[in-house]
Amino acid sequence: MSAAFAPVWPARLENTVAKGRMVFVCEHASCAFPAEFGTLGLTPALQSAHISWDPGALGLARALALRLDGPLIHAEVSRLIYDCNRPPDAPGAMAAQSEIHDIPGNQGLSPAQKYARVTAVYEPFHATLRSELLRRFTLGLQPVLVTIHSFTPVWHGQTRAVEFGVIHDADPSLAHAVVQTARTVPLITRLNEPYSASDDVTHTLRLHATPYGLPSVMLEIRNDLIATPDAQTRMAALLAPVLARALASLSTPRITKTG
Amino acid sequence: MSAAFAPVWPARLENTVAKGRMVFVCEHASCAFPAEFGTLGLTPALQSAHISWDPGALGLARALALRLDGPLIHAEVSRLIYDCNRPPDAPGAMAAQSEIHDIPGNQGLSPAQKYARVTAVYEPFHATLRSELLRRFTLGLQPVLVTIHSFTPVWHGQTRAVEFGVIHDADPSLAHAVVQTARTVPLITRLNEPYSASDDVTHTLRLHATPYGLPSVMLEIRNDLIATPDAQTRMAALLAPVLARALASLSTPRITKTG
Repeated sequence: MSAAFAPVWPARLENTVAKGRMVFVCEHASCAFPAEFGTLGLTPALQSAHISWDPGALGLARALALRLDGPLIHAEVSRLIYDCNRPPDAPGAMAAQSEIHDIPGNQGLSPAQKYARVTAVYEPFHATLRSELLRRFTLGLQPVLVTIHSFTPVWHGQTRAVEFGVIHDADPSLAHAVVQTARTVPLITRLNEPYSASDDVTHTLRLHATPYGLPSVMLEIRNDLIATPDAQTRMAALLAPVLARALASLSTPRITKTG
Repeated sequence: MSAAFAPVWPARLENTVAKGRMVFVCEHASCAFPAEFGTLGLTPALQSAHISWDPGALGLARALALRLDGPLIHAEVSRLIYDCNRPPDAPGAMAAQSEIHDIPGNQGLSPAQKYARVTAVYEPFHATLRSELLRRFTLGLQPVLVTIHSFTPVWHGQTRAVEFGVIHDADPSLAHAVVQTARTVPLITRLNEPYSASDDVTHTLRLHATPYGLPSVMLEIRNDLIATPDAQTRMAALLAPVLARALASLSTPRITKTG
């Protein structure tokens, strides 16, 4: 990246006129590698593989946002450039290796090079999300944070049976409610699988929901189930009522904040 | 405030060239009531009383920042316009009453009026602090968040004996270390007094330190002990070695982040 000109990729914000409570976020929506960053030395096949993004997640998130009348905030560059669901010191923020693949363009980044990515991608992404949440929160729309991810069916050679993972940060109430209401749909649903907060995958929830006492949940769908636009639409039709019933079942609009 | 022009009061950022680990924050540094907000119906005496700001805190914070080579971020408007250490839904964010005093200009604010204060004061304050912390964090300066407050000796008619309050959010390590090292100075020091995180007074720590696993502490000095510039300088001379020894005593540069 040129030192003289530092381009910024803020998150894309859609459907801001929505009146629903759920604010949808898709940190791994994109497999774009803008010219300023280059391809990080990856082949075209790896640039579009699951290490670069969460295939299907954006389509699912868009369909859910429309069905549940929520805004959507999503990244427009690959998570290998910067993974907006990771703090700057996390090994996965600008991963030098992802699953079994080396990422040549992320080897030996200097602190200044890392900081350039932080200011170009991470900081504006979260500023966009933060502003939209603060607006809804202050105006009384009682926002709830829902992040949408997909995961690969095979990881390090192991097949994953789980189809729908429901992950929470400090406040488990919405995640528990989603697992409960998901019993009505034909998906193998698991709480805190294939990852959990102890794997440091709840950064977005930690930044935006936990400090404000907002209900929140991170949803992980196995990507073979949302591989096509049709499949994403069908999955949204299946999950939208699950999410709506789960939110409605929470006894209070917001959890009590305690120290 | 005019609907056509929305002025913004970002935090003031000082001493950014500092190389030390401690980042000092003073949310209640100012008793300024800019013309755009008006006086909120307060007499001049109340505008400069402890309900409007933390008297002495800015002078102490500046002196500590110089002694410990840290940057300082401080507010430039009264906390009665917006208290940057409170989320927008907290009763104290734009307090309609403070201690025994009604705040006329904060009565019956509409959500839109509250949101105007959020965007004018709260959001830019925390954006400034966040950018400085992210820069230091990513560049390897291992920042530690230290917020500086003062409290009134008499509250609702009750005299407070505590002189130096040391308050933590989720991670108590630095607060415990400060209480320990403060044994060497002639101050009545108490952990989590006169307030604690359960009173929702650790919002700044919750936003900026806890999600990144940064050590943090909120310091409260009884304001009669820092009423003059000389007293602030003397207090900084007393507390700077306490803080330095406390930080040095932490076994690891950062706590481990767990879910």
